Amino acid sequence: MTDFAATKALFDLPEGIVYLDGNSLGPLPKAAPARIAAMLTDEWGGMLITGWNKAGWMAQPMRLGDRIGRLIGAEPGHVTTGDTLSIKVYQALASALEMRKGRKVVLSDSGNFPSDLYMAEGLLRMMGGGHELRVVAPDEVEDHITDEVAVLMLTEVDYRTGRRHDMKRLTAKAHAAGALTVWDLAHSAGALPVDLSGCGADFAVGCTYKYLNAGPGGPAFIYVAPRHAGRAVPALSGWLGHEAPFAFDLGYRPGAGVDRMRVGTPPVIQMTALEVALDVWDMADIHDVRAKSIELTERFIAGIEAACPTLDLASPRDPALRGSQVSFRFAEGYAAMQALIARGVIGDFRAPDIMRFGFTPLYIDEGDVDRAIAIIADVMNSGAWDRAEYKTRAAVT
Amino acid sequence: MTDFAATKALFDLPEGIVYLDGNSLGPLPKAAPARIAAMLTDEWGGMLITGWNKAGWMAQPMRLGDRIGRLIGAEPGHVTTGDTLSIKVYQALASALEMRKGRKVVLSDSGNFPSDLYMAEGLLRMMGGGHELRVVAPDEVEDHITDEVAVLMLTEVDYRTGRRHDMKRLTAKAHAAGALTVWDLAHSAGALPVDLSGCGADFAVGCTYKYLNAGPGGPAFIYVAPRHAGRAVPALSGWLGHEAPFAFDLGYRPGAGVDRMRVGTPPVIQMTALEVALDVWDMADIHDVRAKSIELTERFIAGIEAACPTLDLASPRDPALRGSQVSFRFAEGYAAMQALIARGVIGDFRAPDIMRFGFTPLYIDEGDVDRAIAIIADVMNSGAWDRAEYKTRAAVT
Repeated sequence: MTDFAATKALFDLPEGIVYLDGNSLGPLPKAAPARIAAMLTDEWGGMLITGWNKAGWMAQPMRLGDRIGRLIGAEPGHVTTGDTLSIKVYQALASALEMRKGRKVVLSDSGNFPSDLYMAEGLLRMMGGGHELRVVAPDEVEDHITDEVAVLMLTEVDYRTGRRHDMKRLTAKAHAAGALTVWDLAHSAGALPVDLSGCGADFAVGCTYKYLNAGPGGPAFIYVAPRHAGRAVPALSGWLGHEAPFAFDLGYRPGAGVDRMRVGTPPVIQMTALEVALDVWDMADIHDVRAKSIELTERFIAGIEAACPTLDLASPRDPALRGSQVSFRFAEGYAAMQALIARGVIGDFRAPDIMRFGFTPLYIDEGDVDRAIAIIADVMNSGAWDRAEYKTRAAVT
Repeated sequence: MTDFAATKALFDLPEGIVYLDGNSLGPLPKAAPARIAAMLTDEWGGMLITGWNKAGWMAQPMRLGDRIGRLIGAEPGHVTTGDTLSIKVYQALASALEMRKGRKVVLSDSGNFPSDLYMAEGLLRMMGGGHELRVVAPDEVEDHITDEVAVLMLTEVDYRTGRRHDMKRLTAKAHAAGALTVWDLAHSAGALPVDLSGCGADFAVGCTYKYLNAGPGGPAFIYVAPRHAGRAVPALSGWLGHEAPFAFDLGYRPGAGVDRMRVGTPPVIQMTALEVALDVWDMADIHDVRAKSIELTERFIAGIEAACPTLDLASPRDPALRGSQVSFRFAEGYAAMQALIARGVIGDFRAPDIMRFGFTPLYIDEGDVDRAIAIIADVMNSGAWDRAEYKTRAAVT
């Protein structure tokens, strides 16, 4: 049984704050500053260039991939880390399309994170082969899986509402129609159990700065199913995905398995932050995390619905159908969220009207949920949010 | 006049080491651990998600781009940072090809860094439009600039030999032939004065972990000439290159200018290391750095040639024709370099037979050069390198 009081003690959480935005940026693991300082001083400073071998920097992306793989049901040796999620989406989609050359449709939904759609749009334009990016409503995806579809590209958990797709059923349906799947696990990895292997997923990608707590701009990850790993063609064919990077051959030969999805030099300092963050995950069972997350989100929904008549639940009511966040609609949601942040309840806002709250049992408990409910009720019911200063939009919302 | 004793004092250089590999990985600025610890604790830890606005993380890639721009002769506002160099090569080349749609040849040379060629190969295959990557010998580039060429893609300074292309002349010749240019400045930025604006360069890219000292896996940079910035189509069209990332529109609209070359969430911890590294550059004049670099490389070549008859100079003898490194050929160069590293002179080896030494005046002085010459002479002339332990290849060479 995961000891959540023990995991909570491992994070640096500012006094007086209830942090319900770990679905956007996880908090600082207390061990990170010292570990990163040691990496800087002992490895970069002390080993200089020899750190690539001596400190194991070169092998780190695969080592970290395996640690993430454990949380998402991937076979060992089939996840690597690096770049950003957008880049990994591009790689996965390009590889999948290359395996379904005769087909021209990429199917996705309007609940997908826009960057995934933008990357797909850019890729298809680049390919110039008459492909179509077909974007349908989330609940219409299943009906659109036809034998025209080359690739089904979805984010499992909707970033706005928390609505969760049935990965297993949609993957099976895609396969039955002869299509491949690319799953974005941005709001799944560390939020709920994922079973890539059991679902027969083809490609999956995700980021590490949300539920995995790797810090701002932490590296992304990519999974390639073992059955595809030896023949997936990496569109972004960089030297660290080469079979022998240090032979410096002029021609590209893909490396073994998912290694070929590596591109350029890995960001070692960010990788070290990810390493520390994953140490906390070694103490947790993702099934316990999911059970606790459901308790917390149910408690939150019940509390808010009882106390805040102006907020409309935007997330599915059935916990099995949502991820680890709860969203409410409110026309002046931006201002309301600024007012909450000023009172110490940090969630975030997603246009046009979504107030989003993430629940992360590693460091959020019932006491936090109850405090958040009380403050939200006070801010909403007193009209304290209705001030000009809360309505000025910042660059990042 | 740059005070090189003062800049040298800002780096953490291990006792007893002569570090001649700053052309591969620059050393640790002494200020980095404390500054990064403060970023972790005060910004990530203390501000959490609000750091994107309050700590200025979102604007950081452009801010850092301008600081690099100063060193490479770019107009303010036309350089941004992020991703890896391989990714930025892909973006630049894709954008350039889009502007020269009728033409099918990408011209490069066999002295280019292999990853640049691999990325081009992957891109051209992806485009499926019958493009050709034409790779010629470095000294034959000029003769191959014909009206078939869409893009001339070169690394200014050869990673193996240090041979330097004439950026101004080749750019002019490319333009006269109706082609665009993509310049890789990996071994130029911080090594010698670059004048992108004066050369009329179209696109340029580079990395920050070599002469700029941003640490292992530091972010790359990309320059787009002002005349192209508003119409370059970013192939990797991620959300942070969108005109309004936080509108979360389903369709992509490129941001203003070089901003559109941003892709995903920037690696803030690595960016902070780059920021500290650039503080040192604020104390240096790149023309002084170049003058000192020439003094040091001339001294090194003279010393080695006088003392080591078995080493053959692989770099141009004329300092105007080389970057800030000196390379020698030696059939057993790998073993010889391992022996040197064991004796405290750190350079590196590049297959098949290149022993490479980088000269970085910010922290290398005449005393270091003389010590290196003495140790190299001793190792080479005594046959101390000829031991089995030095011949076993490590993962990273």
